[in-house]
Amino acid sequence: MVYNNKTQLGVEREDGQHILVLEEAFRKIFPSVDCPADMLEAIHHGDAFLKNADKVLEQAKAMPDENFWVKPAMVKRCAPIAKTPKNIMCVGKNYAAHAIELGSDADIPDHPLIFTKPHTSIAGHGQPISLQRDVSEQVDYEGEVAVVIGRQGAKIKREEAWDYVFGITLLNDLTARDLQSRHKQFFLGKGLDGFSPIGPVIATNVNEAVIAEQRLMTKVNGEVRQSAPLTDMIFDIPDLIHIISRGMTLEPGDIIATGTPSGVGKGMSPPQYLRPGDDVSIHMPLIGTLENKMSE
Amino acid sequence: MVYNNKTQLGVEREDGQHILVLEEAFRKIFPSVDCPADMLEAIHHGDAFLKNADKVLEQAKAMPDENFWVKPAMVKRCAPIAKTPKNIMCVGKNYAAHAIELGSDADIPDHPLIFTKPHTSIAGHGQPISLQRDVSEQVDYEGEVAVVIGRQGAKIKREEAWDYVFGITLLNDLTARDLQSRHKQFFLGKGLDGFSPIGPVIATNVNEAVIAEQRLMTKVNGEVRQSAPLTDMIFDIPDLIHIISRGMTLEPGDIIATGTPSGVGKGMSPPQYLRPGDDVSIHMPLIGTLENKMSE
Repeated sequence: MVYNNKTQLGVEREDGQHILVLEEAFRKIFPSVDCPADMLEAIHHGDAFLKNADKVLEQAKAMPDENFWVKPAMVKRCAPIAKTPKNIMCVGKNYAAHAIELGSDADIPDHPLIFTKPHTSIAGHGQPISLQRDVSEQVDYEGEVAVVIGRQGAKIKREEAWDYVFGITLLNDLTARDLQSRHKQFFLGKGLDGFSPIGPVIATNVNEAVIAEQRLMTKVNGEVRQSAPLTDMIFDIPDLIHIISRGMTLEPGDIIATGTPSGVGKGMSPPQYLRPGDDVSIHMPLIGTLENKMSE
Repeated sequence: MVYNNKTQLGVEREDGQHILVLEEAFRKIFPSVDCPADMLEAIHHGDAFLKNADKVLEQAKAMPDENFWVKPAMVKRCAPIAKTPKNIMCVGKNYAAHAIELGSDADIPDHPLIFTKPHTSIAGHGQPISLQRDVSEQVDYEGEVAVVIGRQGAKIKREEAWDYVFGITLLNDLTARDLQSRHKQFFLGKGLDGFSPIGPVIATNVNEAVIAEQRLMTKVNGEVRQSAPLTDMIFDIPDLIHIISRGMTLEPGDIIATGTPSGVGKGMSPPQYLRPGDDVSIHMPLIGTLENKMSE
């Protein structure tokens, strides 16, 4: 988040109404420990950071009048991770109903399709997104859950995959459908500047049971377009981590976006692409809402 | 390169027999100017760095007995850029004869296919490359010329594209054909650890006329498999920079691999994939030879 003109770490309380300015809280409660400067550094510190942050949070709760507590309106959200080590890895057609809406039963994949989006496409919650009308006339939303990798690893076993997860967040996998189909491989149509809003927060301490209860919902101008339980994924989070890491080393801060449910604009009849002024919001109870307005 | 147990910048002379240890030469010839610590920093300094390096090189040539001159055998090559800002961007099917050998005339693209390879796949000249036999049984070579971007830019005009080029190098776009076809999008089959050897050097001051005279050649165990002039590219270097940057910001140190000519192992009858012990070398007169031995 940006607070006091400085990009820094914050912790949002469950009620969504109180944000802890972490560095300030560390300084007052835990002066012997340095607060990481940004999310990537925090992820590199891993469990040690999470334990310290938890302790600080617990003590801070008993000090509600301290100035390390701020209201959401006082901070500006930015993407939790500004620059991933690798491009963001994304899964195509990971919900059966979405594969069918863009094609037919034959498009349900036997193996995950993985493509990438560069860090230059990352945007934060609330940031206006240019539809780049000079480049595309068919920009579409894709609400997704994204996994943030916490530890370096390769050949990660399915049953150990959650040990490599730092947390999960939301991602809007904005897609220029015309470029996507024209260039066959998805990178160009997916990789435009600003086409990967991420956030608003990363939820940590996530596991299979937590995921099983979550539902992902995307609205355009308040109208529900996508709504699905995460259990609808064809390849679940442990599958994806296992398959991607078979021959490729994953690193702390890498992001894997897990695919979008049915209900994208291209699947509607007739297709409805985003227009300047449209407001896209992606919601999951555990994480909150990632919302961005589209501009010219 | 690695010299004296330190990764540092070197300049190779045209004869390929003399390498200037740049930091040492700066210290003696140009003590008031700091030599960049690595290639990315050098690229960020841009023309200012190239001018200083040229001056140092000119003066150093008159001092052949100084210890800033070393023999190639005294240094170990590493990839000129260890970590690109974005994943390496690669062009699929950019030579007509290659598109046809993997399919038919119908596979010659009207628009470039762009996919990516992560920095974790980068390897240096001379580094043994694991074929990862537990993951793939069909690893193939693809000799390519790669462009190193020198300046940040978006919406770059075709006629200004060369202003954004720092230099060119060679890249072996190693590909697990079984993963490539199984996962449809190319990232997984292309992105395995070590599957992007780059180097041995970056040639700077390159332009259209220089490119027009170059021929790219790939050998496996000394046998010529690929040989084509760079003028055979369907989308040339200015086309690629223009098209990729239409909606996406390119950054200093980004790499664009320009596609491979015909003659890959998959195109042979029967297909001939790489085996442990095979030696793959990619050659272009301007740059020299990028050679790697395959291991289990």
